[in-house]
This record gives sequence, C-alpha cells and structure tokens, in this order.
Amino acid sequence: MSKGKINFGIMLHGAGGHMNSWRHPSGPADASVNIRYITDVARAAEAAGIAFAFVADGLYINEKSIPHFLNRFEPLTVLSALAAQTERIGLCGTVSTSYSDPFTIARQFASLDLLSGGRAGWNVVTTPLEGTARNYGRPHPKPSLRYDIADEYLKVVRRLWSSWEEDAFIRDRQTGVFFDAQKLHRLNHQGRFFSVEGPLNIQRSPQGEPVIFQAGASETGIGFAGRNAEAVFTHIGGLQENRHYYAQVKAAALAHGRDPQSVRIFPGVNPIVGRTEAQAEEKYRAIRDLVDISDALAYLGRYFDHHDFSVYALDAPFPELGDIGKNSFRSVTDKIKRQAAEQKLTLREVALDAATPRSPFIGTPDKIADLLIGYFEGGAADGFILTFLVAAEGFADFRAEVLPRLAGRGYFDPILKAATLRENLGLAIPRNRYVQQRAEVSRQGVA
Amino acid sequence: MSKGKINFGIMLHGAGGHMNSWRHPSGPADASVNIRYITDVARAAEAAGIAFAFVADGLYINEKSIPHFLNRFEPLTVLSALAAQTERIGLCGTVSTSYSDPFTIARQFASLDLLSGGRAGWNVVTTPLEGTARNYGRPHPKPSLRYDIADEYLKVVRRLWSSWEEDAFIRDRQTGVFFDAQKLHRLNHQGRFFSVEGPLNIQRSPQGEPVIFQAGASETGIGFAGRNAEAVFTHIGGLQENRHYYAQVKAAALAHGRDPQSVRIFPGVNPIVGRTEAQAEEKYRAIRDLVDISDALAYLGRYFDHHDFSVYALDAPFPELGDIGKNSFRSVTDKIKRQAAEQKLTLREVALDAATPRSPFIGTPDKIADLLIGYFEGGAADGFILTFLVAAEGFADFRAEVLPRLAGRGYFDPILKAATLRENLGLAIPRNRYVQQRAEVSRQGVA
Ligand SMILES: Cc1cc2nc3c(=O)[nH]c(=O)nc-3n(C[C@H](O)[C@H](O)[C@H](O)COP(=O)(O)O)c2cc1C
Ligand SMILES: Cc1cc2nc3c(=O)[nH]c(=O)nc-3n(C[C@H](O)[C@H](O)[C@H](O)COP(=O)(O)O)c2cc1C
Repeated sequence: MSKGKINFGIMLHGAGGHMNSWRHPSGPADASVNIRYITDVARAAEAAGIAFAFVADGLYINEKSIPHFLNRFEPLTVLSALAAQTERIGLCGTVSTSYSDPFTIARQFASLDLLSGGRAGWNVVTTPLEGTARNYGRPHPKPSLRYDIADEYLKVVRRLWSSWEEDAFIRDRQTGVFFDAQKLHRLNHQGRFFSVEGPLNIQRSPQGEPVIFQAGASETGIGFAGRNAEAVFTHIGGLQENRHYYAQVKAAALAHGRDPQSVRIFPGVNPIVGRTEAQAEEKYRAIRDLVDISDALAYLGRYFDHHDFSVYALDAPFPELGDIGKNSFRSVTDKIKRQAAEQKLTLREVALDAATPRSPFIGTPDKIADLLIGYFEGGAADGFILTFLVAAEGFADFRAEVLPRLAGRGYFDPILKAATLRENLGLAIPRNRYVQQRAEVSRQGVA
Repeated sequence: MSKGKINFGIMLHGAGGHMNSWRHPSGPADASVNIRYITDVARAAEAAGIAFAFVADGLYINEKSIPHFLNRFEPLTVLSALAAQTERIGLCGTVSTSYSDPFTIARQFASLDLLSGGRAGWNVVTTPLEGTARNYGRPHPKPSLRYDIADEYLKVVRRLWSSWEEDAFIRDRQTGVFFDAQKLHRLNHQGRFFSVEGPLNIQRSPQGEPVIFQAGASETGIGFAGRNAEAVFTHIGGLQENRHYYAQVKAAALAHGRDPQSVRIFPGVNPIVGRTEAQAEEKYRAIRDLVDISDALAYLGRYFDHHDFSVYALDAPFPELGDIGKNSFRSVTDKIKRQAAEQKLTLREVALDAATPRSPFIGTPDKIADLLIGYFEGGAADGFILTFLVAAEGFADFRAEVLPRLAGRGYFDPILKAATLRENLGLAIPRNRYVQQRAEVSRQGVA
C-alpha cells in the first residue's frame, strides 16, 4: 500500500538546469526567452498531470552567470501569461523579500492567483547574491538579518491578503452596496522593517492565499520554513540526508504549532532516463560534453561569489577557501568543500562535477521510479521538482517512460483533479486572519 | 484631405470610469476582477482596430475610493495575461516611479514587451495620493521632487533597456558562444536618488523600449512629458484648451531637441452614443441616476485628499478651499475650483457634475465623429483614449456606430496593421543608447 500520490513540479528554466543546456539539440537555444516554447512545456506538463510549474530567479548577473540565465523572463509576468494558456497547473514564482515591497508583492501574487483561478505559488527567497545590492542601491543584508526581514515581510503580506474577508464584496445593484465595511480590515502594521497601513486593493484570492514555497537549507532557513512555508524546495542528496532534512522541517513546523502535513517537501531531481543503463549514460555524457573546463571553473565560481578558480592548479587537491562562500549559497558551498575534502578530489573533478552534476537519477525508467518511490516511502520527500539538466529531452523521456510506471504502481495520478494548486497539493485553504481572531475571541467568550 | 489616421486606446477599468458603473446592467458587476470579461473586451477592441488597452492604477484605497477600484487587478500581471490572449493590441500599464525600484520595473516591462511580441507601454505616474506613503512606509515626496525622481528613474530604466545591444545574443551551439561581450553594457549609474550597476537580465525588447506614456498636466508635468514621453494621456476640455495643451507639450518636446511628432497626445474621451440626441441623453440620465448625493460628495472628496464635503450646505456656493487639493490631482482640482467660481455653482452641482461628468461627447454617432475629427484636425489631439463612463454599453455603441463612420471618412483604420505598438502608433524604435553613443563618437572622429 502506498502512502499516497507523489506530486511533481517542473522547473521552467528555459533550456534546462545545466549551464550549457542551450547547446543541446533537443530544444530551442533561446528557450529562456521563447514564450511559445515555455507555453508548450507548461501545457505538456499540465496534460501529463504535473501539479505546478516553478520559476526560479535572480536579480544580479555578470559575464560569469549561467549563459541562458543572463536573459530570461521575469517570473510574475511570464506566469501571468501562462495563466491565460493553461487551466489546472500551479504557477509558482520566485520573488525575494530582500529587494521588493510587501504591498506590491502581496498585490501581484493576489492578482496572479485571481486571474489563474487559484493557481499561484510564491517561492520566498532572501537573495544570496550580494551583487544584487548594487542593482538596487541599498546594502545587502547579512543572512540572519535577511531572514528576520523575510519573517516580518511574510507576516505583512499575509495580513494584506486578509484585508478583505471572503464574502466582503456584495455588489448589490439594487441597494448600491458594493462591499460590507465590517469585512474590510486595515493591518496598521508598524514593525522593525516595514510599516504598512493597508488595506490591499484586491480581494482575498481564490486560494485564500497563494501557496508559500521556500528554498533555504541552513538552520535559519529551516526555522523559517517551519514558521512560514507550505512547500519546501530543497536539494537532493542521499536518502539518509534527505530523510534527516525532511524530519527537521516537519519538526520545525510542529515546534511552531503547525500540522507537519501542512509543509510539503520537494527535493529537486534531475533524472536522465534511458531504455538501458548504457543509453542513459550516453545521454549524460552528451550533456557533460557541452562544457569545457574553463566554463566549468566559472560555473563553480558562481556559488563562491564568483571566486576566480582559474588561478589554481587544475589537478592539485581542491584549494583551501577559508571563509569564501560563507555568505552566499552556503549550504551548497559547505557541501562542495566537505565532499572535496572527504573524497580527496582535485579542482578539475570538483568543477566538472559541479558543472554537470552526476545525480543518482540516471538510468532506466524502472530504476528511476524505484528511486523516487524510495524517497517518497522512506520519509524523505512528499514530491519532487523536476529540474532536468536538459529540459526538452529530460521531460519528454520522463513523461513517456517514468510517469506511466509511477501511475501503474499507484504512486501518481496522471490527471490534475482540481483547478487550484492547494487542492492538487492537498493543502488546506488558510482562514482569513481576522475571521480566525474573531472565532478565537468568541470561543474564549463562551468558555 | 485628412492629416492621417486617429489612433484609439481603450481604458480597461472594469465596469467603467463612472463611480457607480458597476451598477449598470450592461456589464458584469465584478468586471474589475473578472479576467474573462476583461479578456473579451481586449479581444473585441483588438478586432475593432483599437491600438492599445490602457490600465490606470493606484496604490492606496480607503472606504471612500470608487467602489470597483477597491478591488482590481494589478496592471503588469493582468496585461501579461492579456498578452497571451491577444496578438496585436498594445498593452499599456500604469506604474509609479515614486513607489517602485527601477531594476524591477525595467525588467517587468521588458518581460511584458518580449512575451507580447512588442506591445508593451508604460504609463509613468508619480502618484498623487499621499496615503500611498503609508502603504510603503516611506515619506511621500512633494510634487516637484516626485518629478525629479521620475526623471532620474526614467534615465536609469532606459539605460537598463540598453544593457544588451539588439544582436548581443549569438547562441552559436558549435562554438559555444552565447553572447558577444562587446555588446553587453553596464550603466554603473550613481545618481541623486538611485544607484544601479546593471546590466539588466533580459534582452533588449522587440520594440527597443516599451512605449513611454505619461499622464500629468501641471507645468512640471508638461516639462517631464517634453523630455520623456512618447504618448501623453490628458483630460479633454474645450477645443481651445486642448489645442493649447497640445501646443505646449509639442513645444516642450522641441525645446528638448525632440521631433514633436515623437510625442502623441491622447485626450481621454467618454462618449455616450445614441441613435438620436434624445436617446443619448437618456443613456446619460440612466448613468447619472446610479449615484445619490452622498456618493457624489465622497467622489468629489477623492480629488481633494478625501476632504469631507458633507459638512457644507449642499445648495450654497461651492466652498472656499484654500490650499486643499494642491498636493494631489492639482490640475483637476484647480479646474473644479475655477469652474465653480466662474459659473457660480453650488456644492450639489459641482458634486453631481464631478460624479457623472457631462462631457460634450454625448449625442448621435455623426456628432461624435465630427467632434473627434474636430480635435484631431484642430491640432488638439493625435488620438484618444476611450474612458467610457460605462465600459460595456459605451464601447459596444462606439464600435458599432462611431468607428465605422470614422473609417468611412478616412480617419480610422479598422484593422491593426502591425504586431507592435510602436508601429501601430507610428513611433520609431529608439536606438540603443550605447550604439548611438558609438555612432556619435565615430561621426565626430570622421569630422
Ligand atoms: C533548492 C534551492 C533553490 C533555490 N532557488 C533560489 C532562487 O531561485 N533564487 C534565489 O534568489 N535564491 C534561491 N535559493 C537560495 C535560498 O533562497 C537562500 O537564499 C540560500 O539557500 C541561502 O539560505 P540558506 O543558508 O538558508 O540555504 C535556493 C536555494 C535552494 C536550496
Ligand atoms: C488623464 C490623467 C490620468 C491619470 N492617471 C493616473 C493613474 O492611473 N494613476 C496615478 O497614480 N496617477 C494618475 N494621474 C496623476 C498624474 O500622474 C500626476 O501625478 C498628477 O496629475 C499630478 O501631476 P500634475 O500636477 O503634473 O498633473 C493621472 C493624471 C491625468 C491628468
């Protein structure tokens, strides 16, 4: 007996997660700015029963960035366009709480949720890239401060989403009453980072609130997820590692008085599927061959604040970096440092591995289905975000070979049952905070 | 011989510009948040040859706001959704330079322009409503400071849009060259209000740059238009008044070394069309009857920072207000004050007039066509933005009765010829600033 169905999200990252995926012949080279292509992918994913599309984001680029991330759509605009071309797939976008205004973002996500009929999700990030500060003319907050800001930001946004009760708009043409003033709430928030009066100028959205995703792996990040997230996007590692992370997040939710079921954990997986092991390996090699060593060093540098790795000997042990990398993708860089030390890797090996990560999800459809079910049943994942190295080939193979096997074994529902993301993920509609407060007050009054 | 064709824009403001238009039976009461309805309007406008859809905006509401503006879509998200459902109509959205970040807004408009295939327009406003400051937790800048900020903001945004030259992205799969580093430019802007390094993380958009609209009527506003705007949205008044305004804006453009043709003037008109004068008058009365006097006073108050007009005698002369209204919709409030004094109007008359403005554009199709042609030929307008009091009835009548007459007389092209807004408005594609600088330097080198 399975414990339920596996939900999938699909990353819309143009040609793919691999730095040189744009060179792969299976999709268009301009995929990250090709709205036709992106729409086709979202529609194909919807037709295949994928619960949501997911758009990652960054607010700073330079010559060393991943090529196709130099040039890509802004998440809220592209997701709104996709809303008009799809009917059931969730639409999740990444927006940073360090470089935006809560009133604007509350509004844009409420608007997306409303125009998509209840399919919006917000991946809340705090922006690791320090260069962002130079595009926004303000100092880059330190990691723990970023999370403090994010906590208050989320609180403000959620209260803005409660500005109007579900049934606040009456629109009675006879009496001329448009709304019920009792069901309109100002938050009048005055906090450490934000002061926001409200109300929001858009109704409470079909999902009550867009689904809150989060992607942060540090201890602080896990605490944030426990308090705020309904879905967590995380890296995939060994089964034990992900099981540990899964337990930590669920425990953090419980510690904040939440039902652990109300936070879903989605590791990102990038399967490469072949009819045989050998064919899958061949596909992997074809991707790896898209990168030369100088590109690989530049890619590695991205995680370490664009540290220049070309100054080290390629075949000597991975260099000692001290604090470099500590203020950025810290969870990633710690892992790279640890593995290099443990496995005594050279810089060349680390760079090539980083540029074309050899995930365990390379192999036959049955092997990959077994692995996914293993994480799911093993208490390491509630679902997965598909972050194919090469999006076109990767998804075509996965859809044709893996999804039917998962469905056949009862782990996947190939049809999206509901028209809202919350329903498809089995997440409850949150109550309007003012309605909830009233309910609590009246309960206390009775007791 | 006509001097050319009249371009029209249509305001997407839900039920209409009239405060109680939501009560009118010709459209849905929830029009401002009904994506199906808004999509149908945009498509019908496109099919009729309307050059662009226009979304106004505000960032502060309270109980006294126009009812259906309490609850409406955010411009960039709704326009992105419309981009996916239309093919030729321009998509213009209002965003304030006083309450947003240039990097974000440059990016969102470039993204909209790209995903719409070159149909984006940005109505640059500086936000008259002081309450906005309380939703964004920062002080509300005074009018002239707002325009100083807007000038620098526009400069930054335009340079961000020049980050990549048109042909910067090579994407040669053979050589692995994704972009030409010579065609990538950082602005490294350090100004009074903003510091922005760049580059923008999206290519130069199909129109080169989205079309810059502006809506401000003060002297400062006209100066701003002369420097920055490609299209100006303005109020309609008498022919002489608009001719004067038209000449002022064109002169301001000339004074800044620009071709006066490169700024198009669009007064907002709200025709009410009847087969006979009497039928048109009847339609007007039906709209006026949607408002009672207390609603009308509240509506009037909006322009005067929500001043409470209910304290004055209704049938006494319009009260002396001193400075009230000077820091907000100043061009509107000055006009209201002037007309009340000149025509010795009572408060009741001013309020009812304000709530249901009796425009001269009430009448038969021929009368309205004559009027429009009069402004167009009379050097008072290059086109018009249709701001119907009641959108559904208003546009249906205008499309059926007035557009064919204008087309028959050679003043209107009922088919959108081009797929970009610039082409449909006859506006040139601006050159990338760095390419232009290079051209100037090399010209000087030769001389
Ligand atoms: C799986 C994963 C995906 C992420 N995606 C993004 C992203 O799209 N944009 C972004 O700015 N940051 C992204 N981040 C960065 C996190 O939001 C966070 O800032 C970073 O991981 C540092 O926080 P931490 O120390 O808690 O992990 C991602 C992180 C992880 C682990
Ligand atoms: C026709 C017209 C339309 C306007 N539309 C908007 C709007 O949608 N949103 C907004 O915040 N301000 C709007 N404004 C306000 C202007 O952007 C400007 O802030 C205001 O008119 C004060 O500037 P001024 O003194 O130069 O007119 C509009 C103004 C005019 C004249």
